[in-house]
Amino acid sequence: MRFGLYRPPVMSPTTPVVFWLSGLTCTEQNFVTKAGAQRAAAELGIALVAPDTSPRGDSVPSDPDGAWDFGHGAGFYVDATQAPWSTHYQMGTYVCDELPALVANEFGLDTSRLGISGHSMGGHGALITHFRHARRFVSVSAFAPIVAPSAVPWGQKAFAYLLGENRRTWAAYDATASVSAAATGAHILIDQGSADPFLDEQLQPQRFIEACRAANQPLTLRMRAGYTHSYFFVASFIDEHLRHHAAALTQTDDGV
Amino acid sequence: MRFGLYRPPVMSPTTPVVFWLSGLTCTEQNFVTKAGAQRAAAELGIALVAPDTSPRGDSVPSDPDGAWDFGHGAGFYVDATQAPWSTHYQMGTYVCDELPALVANEFGLDTSRLGISGHSMGGHGALITHFRHARRFVSVSAFAPIVAPSAVPWGQKAFAYLLGENRRTWAAYDATASVSAAATGAHILIDQGSADPFLDEQLQPQRFIEACRAANQPLTLRMRAGYTHSYFFVASFIDEHLRHHAAALTQTDDGV
Repeated sequence: MRFGLYRPPVMSPTTPVVFWLSGLTCTEQNFVTKAGAQRAAAELGIALVAPDTSPRGDSVPSDPDGAWDFGHGAGFYVDATQAPWSTHYQMGTYVCDELPALVANEFGLDTSRLGISGHSMGGHGALITHFRHARRFVSVSAFAPIVAPSAVPWGQKAFAYLLGENRRTWAAYDATASVSAAATGAHILIDQGSADPFLDEQLQPQRFIEACRAANQPLTLRMRAGYTHSYFFVASFIDEHLRHHAAALTQTDDGV
Repeated sequence: MRFGLYRPPVMSPTTPVVFWLSGLTCTEQNFVTKAGAQRAAAELGIALVAPDTSPRGDSVPSDPDGAWDFGHGAGFYVDATQAPWSTHYQMGTYVCDELPALVANEFGLDTSRLGISGHSMGGHGALITHFRHARRFVSVSAFAPIVAPSAVPWGQKAFAYLLGENRRTWAAYDATASVSAAATGAHILIDQGSADPFLDEQLQPQRFIEACRAANQPLTLRMRAGYTHSYFFVASFIDEHLRHHAAALTQTDDGV
């Protein structure tokens, strides 16, 4: 597994760390090269960890039809339960446990309290990772996330392969379905482009808005006029997301 | 020929326009996707034009040995005089005349007074384009430019192919060799990484520092500790370069 790591010029034992999860088709390089996040991370003193989006390699099965929306580059950040996927597609455990332990041990990062963000499939990953492990991933944001994978084609295809046909197992990996039981006090920040070509069929943010309202989950979802689904959209607002995480991760319980 | 064009959210008939010339192996996409220049350009109200680095296509000859430092992706921004290159490799005329006319006619940009910047081979292109056409390209900056192509392997190889073995014809496309005769009043801004692996063999900025001093050419050349030759280096300082151009291009002769 490859991942990107950015360390700010000034590091301390409590430097905040934000995980970034990329979208369908991406490797660990897309965010590193296209989001322009390093400048704000340098100024804020934040470290960034950007994993790949799936296991890779000739021995790892991928989409039977060679499609780009499942398999290599499309692990959906879940732990697969179905053969043959379950052997390698354990992205949930990788992101939540293995990679935090690795960057703590190898690079001395403080992974006791992390931020998590992502784009599209990675926005889905950020939301479910927060809901499933809110004590570790304490701050969360997303760009154009797949908020209701159980209800849209991308998620239905992937979850059927990875989790099987019993849809009751899907809810734990579906942000909209989870929030009623898993709501946290964290303020979720989401940006969504109004000209995103996937908005109506795959993203449907209103589902999440309504579920958060019902669950009293704090949410700011900003519709950004004219923006599409690209990394240009991410680059336009990544600084604001990093400030959101820096503020949450540097809060202190000790008084000021 | 392909090129990138960024137009800021608010345009006027006098919106400043900055040309960006990329380095060896690049297409028009590298700057567009990796430099993160759009945010500062949006704030400053600057349009950006990023041409490809050479002619392309199966009918266009490239390096006889398939090397990456000449031919496709490596036009060196000169007008070739030697067969077979002279048929297509007219990047000097393309950048100085054809592309400004095209973006003026098709997109309504004001190309009467332009800024020009670039990286590596494109930094060389920016410097010589300014010296050769200072009334059109009135502001200039560069990242890690090849300042003395006649004196270093990359330039010697390309100029021998494109311009022939008579080195007297090379000087007009060599910033260090040109400045004594072509010095302008423009303040040249250059950033150079101290950890650039090409610094000693291919870049040799001290040659240009000395030539500018002798020619009374205003120059600020900043050695940036620890930076290498990548687009991460460009992304780190592109905002300052765009501000340099904005200040020069919005100067008025009308008093204030």
